[in-house]
Amino acid sequence: MLLSTLYIIGITAEAMTGALAAGRRNMDWFGVMLVASCTAIGGGTVRDILLGHYPLGWVANPHYLVIVCVAGIVTTWMASWVHRNHKLFVGLDSLGLIAFSIIGCRVGMDMGLSPLICVVSALVTGIFGGLLRDLLCRRQPMVLHKELYASVAFFAGAMYWALMTYGEQFGVNETSATISTLILGFAFRMSAVRFGWSLPVFSFESDDEPQKADVK
Amino acid sequence: MLLSTLYIIGITAEAMTGALAAGRRNMDWFGVMLVASCTAIGGGTVRDILLGHYPLGWVANPHYLVIVCVAGIVTTWMASWVHRNHKLFVGLDSLGLIAFSIIGCRVGMDMGLSPLICVVSALVTGIFGGLLRDLLCRRQPMVLHKELYASVAFFAGAMYWALMTYGEQFGVNETSATISTLILGFAFRMSAVRFGWSLPVFSFESDDEPQKADVK
Amino acid sequence: MLLSTLYIIGITAEAMTGALAAGRRNMDWFGVMLVASCTAIGGGTVRDILLGHYPLGWVANPHYLVIVCVAGIVTTWMASWVHRNHKLFVGLDSLGLIAFSIIGCRVGMDMGLSPLICVVSALVTGIFGGLLRDLLCRRQPMVLHKELYASVAFFAGAMYWALMTYGEQFGVNETSATISTLILGFAFRMSAVRFGWSLPVFSFESDDEPQKADVK
Repeated sequence: MLLSTLYIIGITAEAMTGALAAGRRNMDWFGVMLVASCTAIGGGTVRDILLGHYPLGWVANPHYLVIVCVAGIVTTWMASWVHRNHKLFVGLDSLGLIAFSIIGCRVGMDMGLSPLICVVSALVTGIFGGLLRDLLCRRQPMVLHKELYASVAFFAGAMYWALMTYGEQFGVNETSATISTLILGFAFRMSAVRFGWSLPVFSFESDDEPQKADVK
Repeated sequence: MLLSTLYIIGITAEAMTGALAAGRRNMDWFGVMLVASCTAIGGGTVRDILLGHYPLGWVANPHYLVIVCVAGIVTTWMASWVHRNHKLFVGLDSLGLIAFSIIGCRVGMDMGLSPLICVVSALVTGIFGGLLRDLLCRRQPMVLHKELYASVAFFAGAMYWALMTYGEQFGVNETSATISTLILGFAFRMSAVRFGWSLPVFSFESDDEPQKADVK
Repeated sequence: MLLSTLYIIGITAEAMTGALAAGRRNMDWFGVMLVASCTAIGGGTVRDILLGHYPLGWVANPHYLVIVCVAGIVTTWMASWVHRNHKLFVGLDSLGLIAFSIIGCRVGMDMGLSPLICVVSALVTGIFGGLLRDLLCRRQPMVLHKELYASVAFFAGAMYWALMTYGEQFGVNETSATISTLILGFAFRMSAVRFGWSLPVFSFESDDEPQKADVK
């Protein structure tokens, strides 16, 4: 219940950031709705395709699709408001990220997959929406370059998995595992944004991009 | 029968536009065949993956793959003819678009999916080929910016669904539903091209692309 | 056994070329691992999704994922060594390409698919990793433009299929089919690199990119 409320907040916030990105590329309404949909429900879609977990969430529950398309179109009327309230959206987006990660991890656990794959499932759910948005809008995928975004999804997935697997003996149930992960994950993400935490960057320059016989 | 003839016309026309796009990027023959294939059968492939509808059409009927690869290579010999007869190809492509949409809608209906998902299935079948082509050729995806292309696919899907669902009492059978959708969809698409109809565009400029803490 | 050794060599070499490409785009460690993973295991993943062949290889065997992520990170410490030993990597990458193609062909044969689809399965396994790498790093997909890379995968797939299907009467078993394909495929690929063999290129210039009514 808590999780599905946060999920709907998350897809709405993601859809709105997707719509803004589409607006920066002067897309028409259909483009706005497509980018909003891919941003909001693309992560779960990629996860379900990778895991063979059918039917996809939005195929079984088409109203999610309606929510994100409406959120995308509404954003076209209040773009500057969304832009001005940027910080609010960073917060909503972060809540959504943790909710997505928990849901992704649970899908993996329900399918009986190995711990690493459950965490990867959390990660894919959390980040592939933004990655698809950036590919469709032809900009550098932010998640590959900056900030702790993927790391937060990874952390949330791992924490939720550990609490659900080993927590029972310490009195942890599903609700308390979800709430703890939400709180710590959100704090982690907000701190990363606030203090500019980031992973090391790998820069490689070669004066000669190999041309003829480039390794593939 | 009518539909499968139109389907083959459609994939051939799409493969030829894909090959031209590959030629604008100086691709080799393999690149031409890959882009032609993705353009022609990419939409149906994405639809089937999203819906979990296996085996894919071209896996079950590999001769479709042969047709589109041959069409791609033949295009390299008659590129300027294709380019000069641009208007003919707009027509063939439009017929293919409606045929793709009807087929996509039928796949959704045969799987017993909800009305909205049937129409989305029509839409995905109609537009994802061109979207993949543009991503592979690294150009702005046309379908997100210009003209009523996606809208035509949506309209054709919705019309076919409505005729098949509520038409029986008015004496509409499968053939007449298909033919009516083809005629009206084609007229809609041709009018959109002729009169330059388009959806509203959403342009959003911010002097400061948010950098550090961009919403994801 | 031989094949799985070569497979591991192949994914390691591919992961390292993926990491270098990520470094040219100044990605962070997560970006490096994601690009390394997509390059190394993206081809098999796309093949399995297209064929509906679940579970995916790395979902069933998560240690493959660990290998490629470690190889990606290690590459960040020895980038210039990798770059200097470019020729070694062309060789390892070529061995991997043939191993990937054989594995892809076998998956198709085990699923009882038609000969053409088995060869396409080899091709997809061989080339989609590099294609995904180039899309994520936003550079021209090399495989669509240069050298015989896809052709080698196609040739290796076709040769393996023919040896397994018609070779028995000539005393060819699985091991000898694998070894022959590896040797001839490797020789083909190395010759293509050495002598600069390539497919014809299709260049199409039109002074007027059609704008309003572009064929989709």
